[in-house]
Amino acid sequence: MRAEIIAVGTELLLGQIVNTNAQYLSQGLAELGIDVYYQTVVGDNAERIRAAIETARQRADLLVFTGGLGPTLDDLTRDVLADYLGRGIEVHEPTMHKIEQMSALRGTAFIESNRRQAHLIEGATPLRNDTGLAVGNALSEDGTSYLLLPGPPREMKPMFENDGSAWLREALGESTTLHSVMLKFSGIGESALEDLLLDLIREQSDPTLAPYAKEGEVAVRVSTKARDAEEAERKLEPTLREIRSRTQRYLYAEEDIPMEAAVIRLMTQKRLTLTLAESCTGGMIAASLTTVPGSADAFVGGVVSYSNGVKHKLLGVPMALLEGEGAPGAVSEETAAAMAEGALTAAGADLALSVTGVAGPAGVEGKPVGLVYVGLAERGRPTRVERLQLSGDREGIRIRASKRALHMLWLTLTGQA
Amino acid sequence: MRAEIIAVGTELLLGQIVNTNAQYLSQGLAELGIDVYYQTVVGDNAERIRAAIETARQRADLLVFTGGLGPTLDDLTRDVLADYLGRGIEVHEPTMHKIEQMSALRGTAFIESNRRQAHLIEGATPLRNDTGLAVGNALSEDGTSYLLLPGPPREMKPMFENDGSAWLREALGESTTLHSVMLKFSGIGESALEDLLLDLIREQSDPTLAPYAKEGEVAVRVSTKARDAEEAERKLEPTLREIRSRTQRYLYAEEDIPMEAAVIRLMTQKRLTLTLAESCTGGMIAASLTTVPGSADAFVGGVVSYSNGVKHKLLGVPMALLEGEGAPGAVSEETAAAMAEGALTAAGADLALSVTGVAGPAGVEGKPVGLVYVGLAERGRPTRVERLQLSGDREGIRIRASKRALHMLWLTLTGQA
Repeated sequence: MRAEIIAVGTELLLGQIVNTNAQYLSQGLAELGIDVYYQTVVGDNAERIRAAIETARQRADLLVFTGGLGPTLDDLTRDVLADYLGRGIEVHEPTMHKIEQMSALRGTAFIESNRRQAHLIEGATPLRNDTGLAVGNALSEDGTSYLLLPGPPREMKPMFENDGSAWLREALGESTTLHSVMLKFSGIGESALEDLLLDLIREQSDPTLAPYAKEGEVAVRVSTKARDAEEAERKLEPTLREIRSRTQRYLYAEEDIPMEAAVIRLMTQKRLTLTLAESCTGGMIAASLTTVPGSADAFVGGVVSYSNGVKHKLLGVPMALLEGEGAPGAVSEETAAAMAEGALTAAGADLALSVTGVAGPAGVEGKPVGLVYVGLAERGRPTRVERLQLSGDREGIRIRASKRALHMLWLTLTGQA
Repeated sequence: MRAEIIAVGTELLLGQIVNTNAQYLSQGLAELGIDVYYQTVVGDNAERIRAAIETARQRADLLVFTGGLGPTLDDLTRDVLADYLGRGIEVHEPTMHKIEQMSALRGTAFIESNRRQAHLIEGATPLRNDTGLAVGNALSEDGTSYLLLPGPPREMKPMFENDGSAWLREALGESTTLHSVMLKFSGIGESALEDLLLDLIREQSDPTLAPYAKEGEVAVRVSTKARDAEEAERKLEPTLREIRSRTQRYLYAEEDIPMEAAVIRLMTQKRLTLTLAESCTGGMIAASLTTVPGSADAFVGGVVSYSNGVKHKLLGVPMALLEGEGAPGAVSEETAAAMAEGALTAAGADLALSVTGVAGPAGVEGKPVGLVYVGLAERGRPTRVERLQLSGDREGIRIRASKRALHMLWLTLTGQA
């Protein structure tokens, strides 16, 4: 079944709101094994809604609408579709009853202004609205199915999850659904990862591999259609095994969690504590670790040592390293090591990660933009420092430096460094 | 001019990401006076991208694409459109040069895997990419204009704002352009600000007032169409004056800069330095201040005092305040003051801002989620502490606490507190 999601609403075309409904429904339809081929947004205009229906009918056999079921005159979806299919409008009595009951509280004018929300396309299956008034519609005609959902996410989501997906499952008469595993990678770029998996991405049709990238993080979704979780696991496991063996140093999770959640979890399991000494990342690593609920069990806090003064005063980095003739300077292997060791002592933790570098826009100490040192101090082990040359603008370099520092920590926690 | 926004990317159809680009571009096109009639999302599939182009050509005369300009084999937008228009592909030499330069750092394989990002549709105007590699494309043929932008928002936005909108303005051939001033507010919610400006928002048609809200920050764009900057200023100024007089304590900038940039600028002008002691915000304030280039002139660094141990060891907060029978605890007015004063001394700055609170999901020390204390210590003045009760989830509370702390600092720097 090929689906198209059609969001109706001029506020979307004006950019007043973002179309989160499309994302939600895309995920929901994928889980039912329904492929979404297109998402469309059209304004509150009868002619253009009708044109969108005509276009969608040629390229999809399930049209899922959001929006345009409300009480106002520019809520047109239901009327336009009824007209397009040559059907009339019925009143859905249970919804009308709900509206009449509310009018006791809100006055009789309430009935008139909300009557339209009880309207149903003739012959359509009503979809219950537990969080609002507008009744949903589901119907099939000439091999095309139509699902009409309200626009507000808090009405749309429960309607889709309850009556909507139940109706779809029955319409599909299908027993398989999409099962997928999200693999998350760090310390490797999108194109380098694709090179490692190119034959699998190109040649495999079941399971399929879909790579995608966010800032400094790369993911691959491995998917198959199966009748149940057991069958899905049997189909997915050989491919997962192959990917694991090729990408061990980079594959940090087999679920959609960020790197910071993975390292917090590892440290909590191992009862290890971490502190930080951040210079060019300026608190970004601390901020990302503390997004994770429960991070206080592993992360004790740290120092944002943006100036040399703070590097010296709070972390005990010798001024001789930082300034003066022949000193290695703030952006150096020596300073990265001293920052990490200083933080380990000052904060009293098991591990300390340090970052110092040139985020730009201008170089400092005669050093180029993108030069970054990451240090890792650990009780009972020699301190290690990694030298990176990162690309991008100021924010890109800071994000990549943060991700690479966490990757270095992760390698240590997993015994790979 | 009727526009259609076409986002290309299977990750959108799978619901892995939300199409924020469509919202951003809808706003941007509206500001240029271009009506968006449809938004479409299509996957990384040549046949369906071509079909989307054909459909859009029938109902729009400007097609704005996002996505599919990247380095991988499923980045197809440019090739499909070239093929549809019967045009070849050129190499954009400046981009190729950038890729070659980066290969010096990343190895020669980098050239091969990124070459595609320098491709340009034959005869198209290249659009500069300041934050990534893929060059944008702009061209017109047979009365239809095409704008090809990258998918990642951090590449797409600057490209649209610079070369993209300049190209569109020329294509429109209009003599008046939209002039607008972005007013940025802090310390006030969207609806409270709207109440203050309601009559202006409702009744004024020139200049127009359009409010925007992001997490913890509110903006109003005041716009008019004018032939030149002088005419624009004459038309805008009376409205701006009226807004200023109503919103003085909240209006921190008359340009689209974040609060962190405004306070860094103020402190640099006044030659003041700042340090931080962050608990529940976990480094977010430091991370946001250090996004500002040149922030090192004003921000010396600080402490993320996530645990009581770090509050005591690095900031000198007495353990008697933090723990034990009858102690006020980590989330208290006393601790907020001690954190700020401790940071002021430890880091050696003119001002110190502290934040301690309960971000959730669970309460701590028997205190409710959302309770936050912000402290401000200043040499030669008594330390002040503000108590906040914020709403939202963990991330929302952390963001709002950060913004409110910066607002307190801004009021101090502008002599309003």
